[in-house]
Amino acid sequence: MSEELVNHYKPDERDILFLLFEQFRIQDYLGKAPYDAFGEDDARMIINEAIKFTTREVGTLNSYVDREGCKHDPQAGTVTVPPLMKELQRKYEENGWHLLRAPEEWGGQDAPHAVSLAVSEFFSGACAAWAMYTGLTLGAARLIHTFGTEEQRALYCPRMYGGEWMGTMCLTEPAAGSEVGRNAATAVKNDDGTYKITGTKIFISGGDHDMTDNIIHLALARIEGAARGTKGLSLFIVPKMRINDDGSVGESNDVICRGIENKMGIKASATATLNFGDNEACTGYLLGSEEHKGISQMFQMMNEARIGTGMQALSQASSAYLNAVGYARERVQGKPFADIATGKRGDSVTIIHHEDIRRMLLEMKCKVEGMRALTLKLAAHGDRAAVAGEGSEAASKELGYVELLTPLVKAYLSDQGFRVSELAIQVYGGYGYIKDYPVEQYCRDIKIQSLYEGTNYIQSLDLVGRKLNQGGGALVRQLAEDITRLVKEHEADEVFGSDAKALGEALGHMTGTTMQFMKFFQEGQHQLIPLAATRFLEMMAEVTCAYLLLEGAVIAHEKMQELSETDRDYSFYAGKIHSARFFIRNILPGVKMKAEVIASRDKTAIDIADHHFPMVGAD
Amino acid sequence: MSEELVNHYKPDERDILFLLFEQFRIQDYLGKAPYDAFGEDDARMIINEAIKFTTREVGTLNSYVDREGCKHDPQAGTVTVPPLMKELQRKYEENGWHLLRAPEEWGGQDAPHAVSLAVSEFFSGACAAWAMYTGLTLGAARLIHTFGTEEQRALYCPRMYGGEWMGTMCLTEPAAGSEVGRNAATAVKNDDGTYKITGTKIFISGGDHDMTDNIIHLALARIEGAARGTKGLSLFIVPKMRINDDGSVGESNDVICRGIENKMGIKASATATLNFGDNEACTGYLLGSEEHKGISQMFQMMNEARIGTGMQALSQASSAYLNAVGYARERVQGKPFADIATGKRGDSVTIIHHEDIRRMLLEMKCKVEGMRALTLKLAAHGDRAAVAGEGSEAASKELGYVELLTPLVKAYLSDQGFRVSELAIQVYGGYGYIKDYPVEQYCRDIKIQSLYEGTNYIQSLDLVGRKLNQGGGALVRQLAEDITRLVKEHEADEVFGSDAKALGEALGHMTGTTMQFMKFFQEGQHQLIPLAATRFLEMMAEVTCAYLLLEGAVIAHEKMQELSETDRDYSFYAGKIHSARFFIRNILPGVKMKAEVIASRDKTAIDIADHHFPMVGAD
Repeated sequence: MSEELVNHYKPDERDILFLLFEQFRIQDYLGKAPYDAFGEDDARMIINEAIKFTTREVGTLNSYVDREGCKHDPQAGTVTVPPLMKELQRKYEENGWHLLRAPEEWGGQDAPHAVSLAVSEFFSGACAAWAMYTGLTLGAARLIHTFGTEEQRALYCPRMYGGEWMGTMCLTEPAAGSEVGRNAATAVKNDDGTYKITGTKIFISGGDHDMTDNIIHLALARIEGAARGTKGLSLFIVPKMRINDDGSVGESNDVICRGIENKMGIKASATATLNFGDNEACTGYLLGSEEHKGISQMFQMMNEARIGTGMQALSQASSAYLNAVGYARERVQGKPFADIATGKRGDSVTIIHHEDIRRMLLEMKCKVEGMRALTLKLAAHGDRAAVAGEGSEAASKELGYVELLTPLVKAYLSDQGFRVSELAIQVYGGYGYIKDYPVEQYCRDIKIQSLYEGTNYIQSLDLVGRKLNQGGGALVRQLAEDITRLVKEHEADEVFGSDAKALGEALGHMTGTTMQFMKFFQEGQHQLIPLAATRFLEMMAEVTCAYLLLEGAVIAHEKMQELSETDRDYSFYAGKIHSARFFIRNILPGVKMKAEVIASRDKTAIDIADHHFPMVGAD
Repeated sequence: MSEELVNHYKPDERDILFLLFEQFRIQDYLGKAPYDAFGEDDARMIINEAIKFTTREVGTLNSYVDREGCKHDPQAGTVTVPPLMKELQRKYEENGWHLLRAPEEWGGQDAPHAVSLAVSEFFSGACAAWAMYTGLTLGAARLIHTFGTEEQRALYCPRMYGGEWMGTMCLTEPAAGSEVGRNAATAVKNDDGTYKITGTKIFISGGDHDMTDNIIHLALARIEGAARGTKGLSLFIVPKMRINDDGSVGESNDVICRGIENKMGIKASATATLNFGDNEACTGYLLGSEEHKGISQMFQMMNEARIGTGMQALSQASSAYLNAVGYARERVQGKPFADIATGKRGDSVTIIHHEDIRRMLLEMKCKVEGMRALTLKLAAHGDRAAVAGEGSEAASKELGYVELLTPLVKAYLSDQGFRVSELAIQVYGGYGYIKDYPVEQYCRDIKIQSLYEGTNYIQSLDLVGRKLNQGGGALVRQLAEDITRLVKEHEADEVFGSDAKALGEALGHMTGTTMQFMKFFQEGQHQLIPLAATRFLEMMAEVTCAYLLLEGAVIAHEKMQELSETDRDYSFYAGKIHSARFFIRNILPGVKMKAEVIASRDKTAIDIADHHFPMVGAD
C-alpha cells in the first residue's frame, strides 16, 4: 500500500477563503496598486486551481519522495532528486505556478502576499520537501531583484523567476550555525571587479540537485580585511555553473557538493554541504554595488524564509489534522465512555464519537485555524503596507504588525505544528506509527521547522530583545489595542461574553509580562530575560491566536443568523465558534500560568552549575 | 560517520543507584525471601556489568539496526533481522543476561523487579528495538509459568527462560485494536484436547524473526460457542513450529507471517501480521486448564508490558538528555544573552552557558529523574509486596501503589519521553535533525510508546474508571497521605519550605479534581470524565514526580552536609536539588491550571457536531 502513489493531502479551502475574504477582507485592497491586476475572482480561481493541482499532481508524491530521498554521487559531486519529483517540477512550471509570486516586471503575476501564502500552503502541505526548492528560488531571485545592479537583475531575474534556474541562500558554516558573525568564508577581489570565493557552507537547502541547469547561490562571505562579526559580511551571487556572455550555462564555477545530510524528514530536500573554491576557481559577484551590506540584505530573504517556515509547519499540521478527522469518521472501535457508564446498549462506533478523540480533533482544529489566522493576518498587513505606499505612516503601522508577528509565526507554528502532528498520530493509534498512513511523515517533516531559519530561541530573542522595544513598545501596543477593542465590544455579550473576558484577562497577563521584562532589565536581572523568552513568545502567540479565533467566531455567528442549519456553511461557521471556545477555555489558560512562572523569577536553571549536570561529554 | 558502529548510549548510573539505595532503600528488603539470594553487592555488580555490556555491545548497534531494519520474505513467509543483532542476541545469552529476570525454578536469578527494571533501562536505552524481543519473551514465559499446566511449564519454561525459544503476545486484530472484545480469531476443540486456531493477528512485536528456532505465541481466540466480548476469550499457546515428542522443533504449525510494518521507528523490531491456520493446520494449546480466562491471564503480561513501555520511553529519553548535555558542553556558539546585554566582551562560549539551553537541559533532567523515580518506586513496591508475602495486608497495600502507578508510568513516561527527545533535538539545533547524531532516532523510537499496550487514553480510563475508585479510593488516599507527610515535614523548612508548600497546593488541586470526577458521575455528566481523563492522569503524574523529586532532594541535601564541594557526589546531590526545584517551580504549576480547566466543565468538544468538522473522509 505504501508503494502506491496515493494523495493524502487534504487542503482546508473553506477556512482559507473565510480568513481571506470574511475575516481579513483582502478584497478591500485587491484591485488597488500594486495589486491592480488582481481581483477577488482571480484570487478565488487561483486557490481553486492550486487545490486541483496539488491534490492531483503533488500530494500523490509525498510518501514517494520520502522513500526515495536524494542521492549524492561523491565522484561527480552532484545530487539527483527522485525522478518523479523532477517531472513534477516541470509540470509546475508548465502550468505557470512559478509566476504567481514573481513581479510583473519579470513576467510574473505579482500576487498579493495573502493569496500567494495561501497557495503556498497547498504546495507545502502536499509535498513540503519539494516546495522548499521553489520557495528558496523565489527568495533568492527577490534578493537580486531588490538589491542587484541593473545588469544582475537583467541576467538573473528573468531566468530565476522564469523557472529556468533555481537559487539558494548560503549562510551556515560548520562552526557558525546560530552565530552567523563567525562566518569564515572569504572573498578576495579580482582585478575585473569580481571576487574569488573560498569556504564551506553546510545545511544548504536545495544546494545541489538536477532539477535545473544552474543554481544561483546567494552566499555570505567576508571580504579580505573586512570587520569581524556580522557587519563585515557581504553577500555574493555565486552561480554553480559559470554563465557565458550570451547567458547560456558554461563550465563549473568550482562549487562542489561534498555531501548531503541523512535526515529525520524532508528527505527529498537536498541539504547540501557546498565547497566553494576548492580549486581556487570560484567566482562570486557582489550583490549590488556596496560591500559589507550582506547581513541586512540577507535579512530580507531570512524574514521571508521565517514566514515560509511557519507556513510550512502549518500546512502539514493542517493536513495531519484533516487526515485524522477523516480517519476518525471511518474507524470503528469501542463505545463512548458515557454510553458504557450509563449502560447504554449498542454497537461499536466510529471513533469520532469518543470523547477523547473529539478533544484531540478539536485541539488540532483550533490550533491549526489559529495558526493559519496568524499567518494570513501577517500577510494581509504586508499587502496593506504595499497598498498604502512605501514610507507612508499607514504603511509603517502595517509593517509593524508584520515585524511583530514574524517571530510568532516562525516559532509558535513550528512548535505547535509538531504537537498537532503528534495528536494526529495519537488519533490513528498504532496505525499512526506506520508508513501506510501519512501522519508519521508529517511529524518527521515538521520537526525541522523549529530548527532552521534561526532556532525558535533566536526567534524569541528577536521578539523580546528587538520587537518589544521597537518604537518604544509601539508594536505590542497597537496589537493590544486591537485586542482590547474586541474584548470591550463583546464582554457584555451573551454569546461571547465570558470568552471575551477571558481573552481580556490573558491579554493583561501578557502585557504584565512585558512589564516584567522591563523590570528585569532595569534591575540588572538580565539572565531572567532569555530564561523566559521562549515562554513569552508562546504567551503572545496564544493571546493573538485566541483573539483571531474570537474575531472569526463573531463573524461566523453573524453569518449563521441568515442560514439554515442544513446549510453546509452553517456547519463551517458553527465549527469556527467551537474552535474559538475550545482554544480560549482549554489552551489560553496556559498564558496566566506562564505569566505567574515568569513573575516568580525562578533562576534554578542559572543557579545549577555546569558540573551539577552529569559529567558526560559528546561522542 | 553514521555508517560506523559508534555507541551513543549514555546510562545514568548515579541516578539509578541513588534511587535504589538512597531513596527507595531496596537494601532493606534484599536478602529477604523471595530475594534471599540477592544482596546489595550483587545488585551493584549487576548494574555495573550491565552498563559495560550495553555501552560496549548494544549501544553500538542502535543506529545500525535502525538503518537495516527487518526484511520480510513474502515467498517463505519469514523475517530476518539485521545480522549483527542476531549476533548480539547470542552474546546476550552467552553472558547470561536472559537469566537475570527468570525464576530460580528455571535456572534464573529471580532478581527483584527494581533491579531488573533498572537493568532493563540500560538494555532498552541502548537499543530499544532489540530489547523488546527479550522483554516479550520473558512476559510470555511468565504467563506459562503462572497459568500453565505442569506439562506446559515443563515443556516451555526451561526453553523460553533459557533463551532457546522466544515468545510473543497476540492480541490485536485488524478490526480490534483498542477493543479487544471484538477479537475474531477462533478456536475449535480437537478430539485430542488441542484446538484448531484460525485468525489473523496484526501488530505482533517479534511475531516472526530468525533469532530463535521457535516462537511461542500466546494468542487470544474465541472458542466456538463462547460468549461475545472479552469474557469469551481464551488464551492459547501456539508455537510457530510444531514440537516433537522429544521436545525438538518439528514442522510448521501453520502460523505464517504475511508481512511486517514499515514504521516511523523501532525498525528492527519486527511488527508482524500473522495468519493462523490458513491451511487449517494450526494447533493451539489452551493455557492452563480453564477456558474463557484469556483476558484476565493476558492482563498479567499486559501490566508488565505497560510498565516496560514506560521504562522504554524513559530509557531513551534519558540517553537523549545525556547526549544533549554532552553536546552542550562541547558545541561553541555565540555569547549568553546577559553578557551581550551588559556589553561584556569575550569569545563565544559552549552552549551549556546559554540561558535557554540550561533551561532545556534542566527541564529534561528533572523530567527524566522524575520519570525514573516513578518507575523504580513502582518496582520497589512490587518487590515489597513479594517480601511481605502473598495475601498479607502489607502486600495488598504495596500492590495498591503498583496498580495506581502502572497507568501513570505507561502514559506519562511515553508522552513526556517524547517531549524530552524533542527538547534534545532542539539543544542540538540543526544537527539534531540528522542521523549522524542519536537524538532524532530516540524521538522516532519513543513515539510508539504512547500507542501500543493500550493507548494513553486507555491508560487514563484505567486510572479514572478503575484505580481511583478501587477500595473506595484507598489507592489515591495512601499516596496523598505520603505526600502530605513530606509536605508537613518540610513546609516550615528554610531550604525546601516554599517548594513543599507548592507541592501541598498541587496535591490539593489533584485531590480536588478526584472530587470533581465524583460530582460529574453523580450529576450524570458522564461525558466530562473521559474529556478530562488524560489531563487528570498528567496531573497525578506531575504531583507524584514532584513529590519523589522533593523527597530525593531532601535526602541529597542531608548527604551534602558531610561532603566537600569538590566531591563528585556533592555535584550529583546539588543537581538533585536543582531538579526538584525546577520541576516544582516550572512544571508543577500546570497542575493548578489543569484543575481549573477541568472544573470549568467546558463541553465544547462534545457540543461540536461531527459535521462541524470539515467533511473529509479517509482515503
